[in-house]
Amino acid sequence: MNTFTHSFAPLQNDTFLRACLRQATPHTPVWLMRQAGRYLPEYRATRAKAGSFMGLATNTDYATEVTLQPLERYPLDAAILFSDILTVPDAMGLGLSFALGEGPKFAHPVRDEAAVMKLAVPDMDKLRYVFDAVTSIRKALNGRVPLIGFSGSPWTLSCYMVEGAGSDDYRLVKSMLYSRPDLMHHMLQVNADAVASYLNAQIDAGAQAVMIFDSWGGVLADGAFQAFSLAYTRRVLAQLKRHGVDGQVVPRLVFTKGGALWLDDMGTLDCEVLGLDWTANLGRARAQVGGTVGGPGKALQGNIDPNVLFAPPAQIEAEVIKVLNSFGTPHRAPADQPDLTGPTHIFNLGHGINQHTPPEHVTALVQAVHSHSQKMRSL
Amino acid sequence: MNTFTHSFAPLQNDTFLRACLRQATPHTPVWLMRQAGRYLPEYRATRAKAGSFMGLATNTDYATEVTLQPLERYPLDAAILFSDILTVPDAMGLGLSFALGEGPKFAHPVRDEAAVMKLAVPDMDKLRYVFDAVTSIRKALNGRVPLIGFSGSPWTLSCYMVEGAGSDDYRLVKSMLYSRPDLMHHMLQVNADAVASYLNAQIDAGAQAVMIFDSWGGVLADGAFQAFSLAYTRRVLAQLKRHGVDGQVVPRLVFTKGGALWLDDMGTLDCEVLGLDWTANLGRARAQVGGTVGGPGKALQGNIDPNVLFAPPAQIEAEVIKVLNSFGTPHRAPADQPDLTGPTHIFNLGHGINQHTPPEHVTALVQAVHSHSQKMRSL
Repeated sequence: MNTFTHSFAPLQNDTFLRACLRQATPHTPVWLMRQAGRYLPEYRATRAKAGSFMGLATNTDYATEVTLQPLERYPLDAAILFSDILTVPDAMGLGLSFALGEGPKFAHPVRDEAAVMKLAVPDMDKLRYVFDAVTSIRKALNGRVPLIGFSGSPWTLSCYMVEGAGSDDYRLVKSMLYSRPDLMHHMLQVNADAVASYLNAQIDAGAQAVMIFDSWGGVLADGAFQAFSLAYTRRVLAQLKRHGVDGQVVPRLVFTKGGALWLDDMGTLDCEVLGLDWTANLGRARAQVGGTVGGPGKALQGNIDPNVLFAPPAQIEAEVIKVLNSFGTPHRAPADQPDLTGPTHIFNLGHGINQHTPPEHVTALVQAVHSHSQKMRSL
Repeated sequence: MNTFTHSFAPLQNDTFLRACLRQATPHTPVWLMRQAGRYLPEYRATRAKAGSFMGLATNTDYATEVTLQPLERYPLDAAILFSDILTVPDAMGLGLSFALGEGPKFAHPVRDEAAVMKLAVPDMDKLRYVFDAVTSIRKALNGRVPLIGFSGSPWTLSCYMVEGAGSDDYRLVKSMLYSRPDLMHHMLQVNADAVASYLNAQIDAGAQAVMIFDSWGGVLADGAFQAFSLAYTRRVLAQLKRHGVDGQVVPRLVFTKGGALWLDDMGTLDCEVLGLDWTANLGRARAQVGGTVGGPGKALQGNIDPNVLFAPPAQIEAEVIKVLNSFGTPHRAPADQPDLTGPTHIFNLGHGINQHTPPEHVTALVQAVHSHSQKMRSL
């Protein structure tokens, strides 16, 4: 126990954390990947004040402000730290920047043996701004909903570290993988240990759940995914703290975009929740890894196509119902065994929300999730 | 039978066509998606003479020249028509162009009801340049290897027709899909009937197999894939001629990039071959849809990651062996039943070859496929 114990307000809405632990909830909890983001005019206003994306992410007050913005608009069941997946390689000295209207860029990509061998787990003090933001957000939330911390997966970080930016074909990182698997494994080990330290520091700062974004795991070949992505996600998970500063269990979520094909493999990870994109069938995923009542299994998170949010509200509602029904009625617990576990679903998009999304369409989505998922439980 | 009968030379290497029909072959046939392309200096020279990509594709002599170029370098087991997947919407009047160094662009994208309702199956005379190229290439091949014709899938054409160009998020086409499924279904019907006419005309011109490239089927959500991509691929297949001008069966190949998750659904298609990208496990795919000796089933095509070609030859060979072994020993027929069918594999990349590929690395790949696959059969 550390000095933060009892310094945070008690949690009022625990549906997300309960669903992560496969415990019954009165409705299906919902949050949205990148819910604090460019589709919100209030986000764009704060971003303008901050001057740059990194100016926003490194300022505790701004990061707190934008994290809470979507909660003011929508009755979401969780908040997620506002930050970027590339803070860790930035702290390793790669020089992260965001040109306006473009994606992230590294000034010093890692492309040869010398650069790989220089990599080391960064001093976590360089990431203090992230941990400060976690504590500040947790305080500002004041117990409304739990706060999720996050990191990119070791493989996803490697993609950016080698490519130096986003990529269409992952040619450089895969060239290294196939030509010098020894270098790639070395980089992934460093990344995994760095990610573990980073997530543990977020947990110590107040994060109530942590999520690993394996955004580019799905670009790997069968076999390579298991060896170069999954194995290092496993290495991160093995090092994570199991309890937060308030003594509560901290659920661990893993999301591999394009990973539904490898769900059986992912089912062997030591984590509580698996995220899925829209290509997955939630009913089939539940049968594969969702487990049974009283038995082990993973909670599932996802998986509506973010582009559904461009349709009118009536169609959004219909598509939400399709996704909820594809999972099926979630686990319900008898009154005398409220913590009996069973298959549970956390509603989310299958990927980050699109910056062009009309904000009022998100209202329709969240409402549809809550109302239909309540009805499902009473049938 | 039409007037072309007997005008083409007899086929000397039938390994590709036999493998398509799940008949035994002495080695695993191999060809590469986009094998005639920018990674070859001789291609770039012809492209420079032609002035533009469309200048190249619409000129019979140039199209013939570049189609044969990779066969001069490598002992490939099939040729594929040099053309583009967007010729059909171009013939519909959308105005295709290729800016240097960029992807395809349509001058008149299809974005509203009026534009959708104006769409019609184009006069196939507008695509005469394609059919002329097919006949010219078939003659120039002189029976060396069979010639594959191809088209984009109805859904993949719709993606480009609505987006007007390539896309990261398919926002516009999916907005139409979710907002106005009626319009999307209408467009897909027109596309399917146009693709069927287009492929039938290629068959009449001399194509010995036809392939449908569903390059963007994998971006759809589960459920949407079946309704908006697979259903219209099925509609194309139902209209295809079963025999070519020489009376031979014309195998039909379907490749959905990112489609391995839906392989069971794809197994119900009325086609001979299913293509897979590198995310698939060929052994699992074989168990799902490859069938048994003497029974029905699909031949499988694929699926090495094109980025393997950036590794040195020794690693390329090792990765080729992994892919061949993941499929396992292909069907071998007893001497007195040479046409007995069983599970077969056609080696290919999981996607088009990268323009930066060193041409000599392709030599290593083709050689490894032939030599190792021969060895597998003698074990």
